[in-house]
Amino acid sequence: MKTDEAQIRQLVTDWMNATRSGDTRAVLDLMTDDVIFLVPGKPPMRKDEFVAASRAHATGNAPRFDGRSEIQEIRVLGDWAFMWTKLHVTAIPPDGSPPAAREGHTLSVLKKENGKWRLARDANLLAPVKP
Amino acid sequence: MKTDEAQIRQLVTDWMNATRSGDTRAVLDLMTDDVIFLVPGKPPMRKDEFVAASRAHATGNAPRFDGRSEIQEIRVLGDWAFMWTKLHVTAIPPDGSPPAAREGHTLSVLKKENGKWRLARDANLLAPVKP
Repeated sequence: MKTDEAQIRQLVTDWMNATRSGDTRAVLDLMTDDVIFLVPGKPPMRKDEFVAASRAHATGNAPRFDGRSEIQEIRVLGDWAFMWTKLHVTAIPPDGSPPAAREGHTLSVLKKENGKWRLARDANLLAPVKP
Repeated sequence: MKTDEAQIRQLVTDWMNATRSGDTRAVLDLMTDDVIFLVPGKPPMRKDEFVAASRAHATGNAPRFDGRSEIQEIRVLGDWAFMWTKLHVTAIPPDGSPPAAREGHTLSVLKKENGKWRLARDANLLAPVKP
């Protein structure tokens, strides 16, 4: 039996793997139904909007994503937890033009539902990396 | 005796008032010693860096700040809590040039220390408002 912290680390790994392989269904299973995503300059995004954005992405001529997450802190508070990470994401365009890199931090709230940790609130502070 | 949620709402009001009046000492008393501030495109800022930035600000020919915070959710988890808000900040330059507005969301973790709620982790997603 993994500790809560180890399970949350596994969630981060699973999220990156599912994103990398474009497995939207797997990503959706890693978030709560009331999840809120916050990013600069946009309205809050909920789960149904995440689904719509992922579908639009999958049908378009979309870039491939790769990334790495360095966890800076995980604090477990019973069935809730918070975490912040340093995140680096690369978007690889399908037409062979140069990859675009973004990096920065995330602050997330996680919730344990029926024994499984899921992302519940997420602030994503990624900004373009200056070449 | 105020509820925890009411005390956290008061913390937000006190923070805005202290920032508006440039009272750095009061602002510092509203955060934990291990506070972490996350913003896009910059390294994480800790309390000593917050002090240094506030001092630099106070000695320069700095703009006056005003703002309003609309709390979207507060969830109390024992001696910890998380909150997200919609925030609007205006910087008023001392030379009479037009104010610059920034708005967006914040996701924060709060901690109750010796009966007093303080800001512990903060992600600030404000972006310039397009005129």
